[in-house]
Amino acid sequence: MTAEIWDVIIVGAGLSGLSAAHLLRKRNVKFRILVLEGKDRVGGRTVSTEIPAANGVDRWDFGGQWVGSTQTHILELIKELGLETYPQFSIGKKVHHMGGPGAKVRTYSTSIPALSPLVLMDLTQLLWKIDRLLATVCVQDPSMTPGAVELDSMTLQSYIDKQAWTTELKEEMGLCSRSLFGMEPSQMSFLFFLMFAAAAGGLLALLESTPGCAQELKIKGGTQQLSQCLAERVGFKNVRLGSAVTAIWQDAEWARVSTTTNTFLCRAVIVTCPPHLAAKIHYQPALPSQREFLTQNMPVGHMIKFILTYQTAFWREKGFSGEIVAGSSTECPFCVTFDATSPSGNAALVGFIAGQQASQWSSKESGERREAVLSSLVKYLGPEARSFIHYEEKDWAKEDYSGGCPVNVMAPGMLTYYHPSLRKPCGRIHWAGTETATLWCGYMSGAVQAGQRAALEVLAELCPTSLTQEEQDAVQNKHSAEGAAKQTPTSKLRYLCTSKAVVIATLAISAAVLLARNQNAVLNTKAYFTNVFTTTRHKIFVL
Amino acid sequence: MTAEIWDVIIVGAGLSGLSAAHLLRKRNVKFRILVLEGKDRVGGRTVSTEIPAANGVDRWDFGGQWVGSTQTHILELIKELGLETYPQFSIGKKVHHMGGPGAKVRTYSTSIPALSPLVLMDLTQLLWKIDRLLATVCVQDPSMTPGAVELDSMTLQSYIDKQAWTTELKEEMGLCSRSLFGMEPSQMSFLFFLMFAAAAGGLLALLESTPGCAQELKIKGGTQQLSQCLAERVGFKNVRLGSAVTAIWQDAEWARVSTTTNTFLCRAVIVTCPPHLAAKIHYQPALPSQREFLTQNMPVGHMIKFILTYQTAFWREKGFSGEIVAGSSTECPFCVTFDATSPSGNAALVGFIAGQQASQWSSKESGERREAVLSSLVKYLGPEARSFIHYEEKDWAKEDYSGGCPVNVMAPGMLTYYHPSLRKPCGRIHWAGTETATLWCGYMSGAVQAGQRAALEVLAELCPTSLTQEEQDAVQNKHSAEGAAKQTPTSKLRYLCTSKAVVIATLAISAAVLLARNQNAVLNTKAYFTNVFTTTRHKIFVL
Repeated sequence: MTAEIWDVIIVGAGLSGLSAAHLLRKRNVKFRILVLEGKDRVGGRTVSTEIPAANGVDRWDFGGQWVGSTQTHILELIKELGLETYPQFSIGKKVHHMGGPGAKVRTYSTSIPALSPLVLMDLTQLLWKIDRLLATVCVQDPSMTPGAVELDSMTLQSYIDKQAWTTELKEEMGLCSRSLFGMEPSQMSFLFFLMFAAAAGGLLALLESTPGCAQELKIKGGTQQLSQCLAERVGFKNVRLGSAVTAIWQDAEWARVSTTTNTFLCRAVIVTCPPHLAAKIHYQPALPSQREFLTQNMPVGHMIKFILTYQTAFWREKGFSGEIVAGSSTECPFCVTFDATSPSGNAALVGFIAGQQASQWSSKESGERREAVLSSLVKYLGPEARSFIHYEEKDWAKEDYSGGCPVNVMAPGMLTYYHPSLRKPCGRIHWAGTETATLWCGYMSGAVQAGQRAALEVLAELCPTSLTQEEQDAVQNKHSAEGAAKQTPTSKLRYLCTSKAVVIATLAISAAVLLARNQNAVLNTKAYFTNVFTTTRHKIFVL
Repeated sequence: MTAEIWDVIIVGAGLSGLSAAHLLRKRNVKFRILVLEGKDRVGGRTVSTEIPAANGVDRWDFGGQWVGSTQTHILELIKELGLETYPQFSIGKKVHHMGGPGAKVRTYSTSIPALSPLVLMDLTQLLWKIDRLLATVCVQDPSMTPGAVELDSMTLQSYIDKQAWTTELKEEMGLCSRSLFGMEPSQMSFLFFLMFAAAAGGLLALLESTPGCAQELKIKGGTQQLSQCLAERVGFKNVRLGSAVTAIWQDAEWARVSTTTNTFLCRAVIVTCPPHLAAKIHYQPALPSQREFLTQNMPVGHMIKFILTYQTAFWREKGFSGEIVAGSSTECPFCVTFDATSPSGNAALVGFIAGQQASQWSSKESGERREAVLSSLVKYLGPEARSFIHYEEKDWAKEDYSGGCPVNVMAPGMLTYYHPSLRKPCGRIHWAGTETATLWCGYMSGAVQAGQRAALEVLAELCPTSLTQEEQDAVQNKHSAEGAAKQTPTSKLRYLCTSKAVVIATLAISAAVLLARNQNAVLNTKAYFTNVFTTTRHKIFVL
C-alpha cells in the first residue's frame, strides 16, 4: 500500500485544527494540508443542532456558545468569515440559590449576587486577594510566577478553605469551578486556576456576561459554523471525517500518521485534540517522558448541556432574566442556566449540569434527569417551565473523541514540573488546542490562537519566508505572549491597594455591617458593593 | 483472518497478570489462557539483570526488589515457587543530609534519623497525627473515610505545610514522597497517601527496613524470577511477548482483543497494566466515562534506579550500613541508597533518583548523571566510592510499556469522585495491577493480590463451581477486603492517645528539650524517642 503524501497533517477538525489549516493555506496556497478527524463532523467541542421550537425548528449550540469583546482571535475570525454576533440577554431578575434545598431562593437585578452582606464582604476580600495574585501570574510560563511552587502545590479547594471565611462563599466558589471547568475545586491546581483567569484578563471576566466577559455575545446560527466555514475554505476534500489518528511515527525524513484504515506521510503534524485524547495516540519514537507526564496530569471536565424550547420566554414576562445559579447542596441538578432565546425569537433556556453533579446525573435515565431539571426550573421560574416544546441535552463525556468538556484542567504540580512540554514541539509534531493558548485559554478564542501559533511554527520550519519578522520572532519566543498576558488590565489592580489595606477595609466594613441591624443599612452596604464592583469592572475592562 | 479463540486473555505479563493466569490455571487446568505482553520480557516493573561484579558477574534487581514479612500474598508465592529470601543489610551508620549543600552531613546508627531534637519532636507529632488518621481510613472504599472529601481535596504537600512545624521535616516528607512514589508531595491527594499507608499497615512500614516493613527482605536471584517461574507454570506458549494490546472490543458473546498484528476472541479479559497505559487502549464500546476520568487522574511516578558494584563493601568496613538519605536541597541527585551486596557476596550499592530530581537528571547525559552520583557517594562514604567496578542504571520513564515507576498515584478528587471504577469490571473486562490492591497497594505483594482477585472475578463468571463459598462471597463483596484493611494493627494506635494528649506531651517535651542545653539532655531525648519509635513499631508489627 502506497502512503499518500501531504505537507502538513492536522489531527482534529475543531476550531484549533481548522484555524491552523486556514492560516497555512492563506500563507501558501500550494501547501497540501490534510485534516484528520475522528468524529463524523467538524467543530470539536462546538456543535450546533436544530431542535423543535416555537416557530418550527431553530438551531442552538450544544457546545461552546459564547464569545466576548476582548477575545480578539475569535472576533477576527468571526469577522473574516462574515458571521454576526448578538448579545446574551441578561435583563431582569437573576435567581440565586445556595445553602441547601431549604435555603431561601433569592433574586437580584444588579450584577451583585444576592448574598448576605457578610458573604459579600467575604467575596470582596477573596476577589481582592485573587486579583493581587493574578497581577503576578506569568501565563506564558506559570512556573515564573512568584511563589509558583506553593501556588501549584495546593488545590483551588485548599486555597478557598484557607482564604474564604464563610460557608456560603465556599459553595459559590464550588459553583464557579463547576461552571467554568466542569470540575470540582479539589481537582485542579490553584496556580492553574490563576493562570486560566489571567489568560482571560481576570476572574470576573470568566464569570460574567457583561461587556468584555466570557458570556457576552453569541453567534447567529451557532458556533459550529466557524468550523464549517473554515472547512469550506480549507477544502472539504482536505478534511476527512471518521478518521481517528491512532499512531504517529517519525523518522529523519517523514512523519507517518496512521488511522485504522490509512497511512499518510507528511513533513509536519499539528495535534490539536485535547491532552487526554492526544495521550491515546501511539507515538514512535516515544514522546519525551516529560510530555507523557504532562498529559497524565491534565484531566478533562464533565458537562451536560441542556436546552429547553418554549412558546414564549415566559420568564422575561415575569421579570426574570433566565439566569439561575444553584449550589450543589440545593438538590438542583444544574449549576447555572441562561436565557437562550434565538435571534429569530424562538424562546429557550440553556443550562449546565457540571462537575460531580454531571457524574452523578450522567448515569441516570434521561427522563429522570429531565424531570429533575424541570422541577428545579418550576421552583425557580414558575409552573410555566413545565410547558416546554422540546428538551434536548448533550453529555460531552459520552461523545466519542471528546470524552469530556469544556476543557482539560491541570492537576497540582503540572505547571511547575511539566509545563515546558505543553507547547514544545516533539520533532515534527506541534501541539495546539485551546489548552495550549495563552489568551483565553480553554475558550474558542484560545483554540484559534493556539491553532494559529502552531501554524506559524510549521511555517517557520517549512516555509520561513512566508512569515513576517514579528511572526518569526514570536515563534522564536522573542516576543512571547507573556508580555501581552501579563499586561492584562487586571494587573493594574495591583497598584490600587496593598493586602493590608484590603484586610483593614474589609474588617471595617464587616464591623459596620454587623452593627447595622436594619434593612436600610444592608441596602446601603449593597449599594457600596455595587459601586466597588462597577468600579472594579470598569477598571478591568475599560482601561 | 480467523481470530484465535481463548477463554481468558490477560493484558500484561507482570506479576499481577501472571498471578492471575497462574490461579486460573490451578483452578481449571482446561482453561485456555493467553497472556499478551508489549515488552520483550515478562516481569513488568520487575527486571533482574546480570552486571559485572567482584566475582565476575552477578544479578541485581533494577525494578521492584524488596518484600516484607507482612506481605502475605507475595510471601506465599515465593514459597510456592521455591524461592528464597534474605534480609536487607542495615548494620552500621546511616548517612543523613538535609538542609542544603552546605548543611552538616550527619550519621546515626539507631532507627531514629539524625535530626535535631526539635525536628524529632515535630516528626513525632506529625506521625501521631497521621497515625490517628490512618486508623480511620477505609482502604476498600476510601470515600467512606471520615472527612474523606476534605482529605482528598488537599495535596500531601498542603497537609505537610499545615501540620509540620519545621522546614527540616517538610524536606524529610518530600524525600519520603519521592522515594515511595517517584513523585513530589504536591502531586498526590493526601487521602491517597493515607490509603496507601493504611494498605501497608502504617507509614513506618513503608519507610523502614526492619521486620514487617517494605524494605525488609530481598529475593535470592532477583524478583523477576517470580514472573519467569509463573510464566513457566502458565506455559511459555501461552505468554506472547512483543504483543502490545491496542484495542478491546466487546459484544454480547465475545471480547475481541487486538494487537498490531493479531486479533483474539475470548470470554473475559484481565487488564493488568498500570492505569496510564490501560488508558491508551482503544475500547469499543467506550468505557464508562467515570472509568476514563479515573485513569486521567492517576499519573505515574518517575524513578531512575542505579547499581554500583565494588570489589569490597568498603562502606561496611568503615562502619557504614550503605543507607544514605539526601534531601533535594543538597545537590545530591539521589534521594536514597542502600547496601545491595548480593547473597553470594558481590559488593554493591543501590540508589534511586526520584520525582522531580529524576525529571531533571533524566534529560542529562548518562556520564554526567553517573559523575553526580559518584561525587555524592564520595562525599558521604569516602573516596573509595569512586573505585567501582560497574555502574548500571535504569530510567523507568524511558522503558516502553512502563513509562514510569514505581506506582501510579491518585490526584486530589480521584478517590472521592471516581474510586468505584477502580476495580469495577466493565462488561467482560476486569482490572488488576498493584494500583487496584487493598493490601500493600503499589507493591509486588499488591500486584499478586490484585491479580488473584481479578482471577476469582473471572472464575465467578466462567466457572463458579471452582470457587469456595468464601471466595464467592469475596467476589460479591460480602466479605470485602475492607475489614482486613481496617483492622491493620495501626488502628490500635487510635486507642493509645487522643490528639490533645499528643499535643500536650509534645509541647512538654519541646519545652524540656529547649531548656536542656547540654549534649546529655539531647542524648536523653533521643533515647526517649528511640523508645517511642520502638514501642510504636512493636505495636504496629507485632501485635
